[in-house]
Amino acid sequence: MDATAVLELVRERRPLVHCLTNTVTMGRVADALAALGALPVMASAPEEAADMAEHAQALVLNLGTPTPERWQACRAAGLRARERGVPTVLDPVGCGATPWRTREARALARKILPVVVRGNVPEVAALAGLEAPGATLRGVTAEGGSGDAHENRRLAREASRALGGSVIVLTGRAMGVVADGARSICRPTGVPLLARVVGAGDVLTAVVAACCAVGAGGGRFAASQAGLALFEAAAGQASRAAQGPGGFWPHFLDALHGLEPAELAGEALDREGTR
Amino acid sequence: MDATAVLELVRERRPLVHCLTNTVTMGRVADALAALGALPVMASAPEEAADMAEHAQALVLNLGTPTPERWQACRAAGLRARERGVPTVLDPVGCGATPWRTREARALARKILPVVVRGNVPEVAALAGLEAPGATLRGVTAEGGSGDAHENRRLAREASRALGGSVIVLTGRAMGVVADGARSICRPTGVPLLARVVGAGDVLTAVVAACCAVGAGGGRFAASQAGLALFEAAAGQASRAAQGPGGFWPHFLDALHGLEPAELAGEALDREGTR
Amino acid sequence: MDATAVLELVRERRPLVHCLTNTVTMGRVADALAALGALPVMASAPEEAADMAEHAQALVLNLGTPTPERWQACRAAGLRARERGVPTVLDPVGCGATPWRTREARALARKILPVVVRGNVPEVAALAGLEAPGATLRGVTAEGGSGDAHENRRLAREASRALGGSVIVLTGRAMGVVADGARSICRPTGVPLLARVVGAGDVLTAVVAACCAVGAGGGRFAASQAGLALFEAAAGQASRAAQGPGGFWPHFLDALHGLEPAELAGEALDREGTR
Repeated sequence: MDATAVLELVRERRPLVHCLTNTVTMGRVADALAALGALPVMASAPEEAADMAEHAQALVLNLGTPTPERWQACRAAGLRARERGVPTVLDPVGCGATPWRTREARALARKILPVVVRGNVPEVAALAGLEAPGATLRGVTAEGGSGDAHENRRLAREASRALGGSVIVLTGRAMGVVADGARSICRPTGVPLLARVVGAGDVLTAVVAACCAVGAGGGRFAASQAGLALFEAAAGQASRAAQGPGGFWPHFLDALHGLEPAELAGEALDREGTR
Repeated sequence: MDATAVLELVRERRPLVHCLTNTVTMGRVADALAALGALPVMASAPEEAADMAEHAQALVLNLGTPTPERWQACRAAGLRARERGVPTVLDPVGCGATPWRTREARALARKILPVVVRGNVPEVAALAGLEAPGATLRGVTAEGGSGDAHENRRLAREASRALGGSVIVLTGRAMGVVADGARSICRPTGVPLLARVVGAGDVLTAVVAACCAVGAGGGRFAASQAGLALFEAAAGQASRAAQGPGGFWPHFLDALHGLEPAELAGEALDREGTR
Repeated sequence: MDATAVLELVRERRPLVHCLTNTVTMGRVADALAALGALPVMASAPEEAADMAEHAQALVLNLGTPTPERWQACRAAGLRARERGVPTVLDPVGCGATPWRTREARALARKILPVVVRGNVPEVAALAGLEAPGATLRGVTAEGGSGDAHENRRLAREASRALGGSVIVLTGRAMGVVADGARSICRPTGVPLLARVVGAGDVLTAVVAACCAVGAGGGRFAASQAGLALFEAAAGQASRAAQGPGGFWPHFLDALHGLEPAELAGEALDREGTR
């Protein structure tokens, strides 16, 4: 199942995507889900997070701006989602930046076993307890790290194994990798303006979750690829239409809302099975 | 007093509108109040909410993304507002979606007796303990429900009686109803793009509150009608000017800021007194 | 060191600016820092705020929408920043509006001794325990107060002395003052549209912090002047390009991102040494 088919299913079924997410880009994430055709809901209190999650078609756990209450809500919602077969996508924002966040993020991932983890190189490495030579996190922004596709694929596959088999979506400025323990794909990505906007990773994670929500053929690996393709297509259009970072998100939402199958065709996927 | 007169009063007096509101669209609500000419303030802690509310000209209690601290702040601010004659507008976001939220929302409404309640059909029905056949809430989005004006007016009037006489502003995609126990008006509404943006209800509620804040002749019923008319006029302009959901809110704010009396004239209000 | 040189340093070094800030404009503040070339991070929990602050090049403590946890986080981060030589910029949003906020803000300022305080006339006066005849705060908006430059400079210098020598950046609709106990500058400012948008002060504070972060020659006084100049240049461009408040922030971000040295040249600074 390709990105076009997934997009059509999202628009038709309007999946409910429950997000426990950071307070910086919460509105932007909701806007993107709505523009895509999904229904966002952001109920964040431990008192109701699990009850909301069980009625959703996908759950996003985004670890930016964490609080003790949000960790608790993430655990409750993640466990309920797991019980009920609702796919959970984890975004380990800032994992590695402070000891508290790293420790809590690892404990959460072990407990809820997300079906997909989407992050940048140092975040995913820190979550999985792996090395990523040269990659550092400044706050929630990755700097340095290998620009080598082979290296990033290896990291993603190892992270998948370390995290109980989650599909890993690893993104940087020049490439996006989707991997599980056995296979990986890598696609070039290239929207320089993303270095000057906030929330690109958060929005990508939510788009991946919306794709997982419609349970299309090919499962979460294909859904993750589709999510990455949809995000890239809209980001590319927005980058060409915008005069700068201020116009980027309005144009991104318009692009995501208006994406046509033709704009998603002919994707050059560089597949590399490792078995 | 018509919408034009209310708008002029808001621009002249710049009422302070205190909002205890959800974290998803908090910024958008503040932006809309400022564009309209009001002064927004969002102080949310129980430690200061009542003290802020008593200096405001209207209070918004929006129940999206609730927390225990926010329920406490809503109670404190709502009671103080009542004591001091500050009109309170309640938006029962997601009421009915989880047992905790429904229970807390009902308890709050009974305690503070808001002068206006603004919500969609399943939210208002759940708050008032009424049936709304076929209407369901997915997260915070209404689906299904009667598209019948007579039915919605009946629901709004009954909700008003059940909620101690609050004016009810009931909105859906095709119509808006303003009712109290004795009378109701219904106006067609029609901005399809609103189905792909986030926060339309939250913004409408705040605009209604700003109209209530200037205490114009005709009271809260007329103020609610004026708020609905101002919102619809700006939303219609924004929908025509925008290329998609990304441009909607920027255009909406510009439209709200620039609304001219002529654009509000000749409103076709379909009045129906029920006594 | 002038604003052009500071801007070039920010773009080159990409300082990490850690913000403990209000939930209304948190996203807007992060957007502005990213557009300027800095790296924003908003980790807000007491459990990690100090650990994040010590790796930052500047710390923003913005007191809007406070909570008990945020006061605690502000204290922890502010003290750690002080220990490690990370410059802290304090924005006393709404100081004076409620007794709780005023008391907590004063205690925080005394404890952490920020290097810069940026606020409007009644906020800075309330923080410093000074009189500002005729200036009142409605929620978080200043009204009235002296439009007299000499009077505002005097207030800023006295506030600096009362606050342990912080540089004071005092802003209103018609002028901006930068002062310490010994000297002050005043520049006319004039973007009427700012009266209809939300977050201008918050964004200015963050821009000042980014300028302090690069530790340029001339210290925090020159950095504060540079921040004010960068903000004004981008706000002026945005105001001319926008059709209303809705377009203001997108245009502001584009302007901030694209600022050219020529646009910052020829600044008419009205310097007035008081010794």
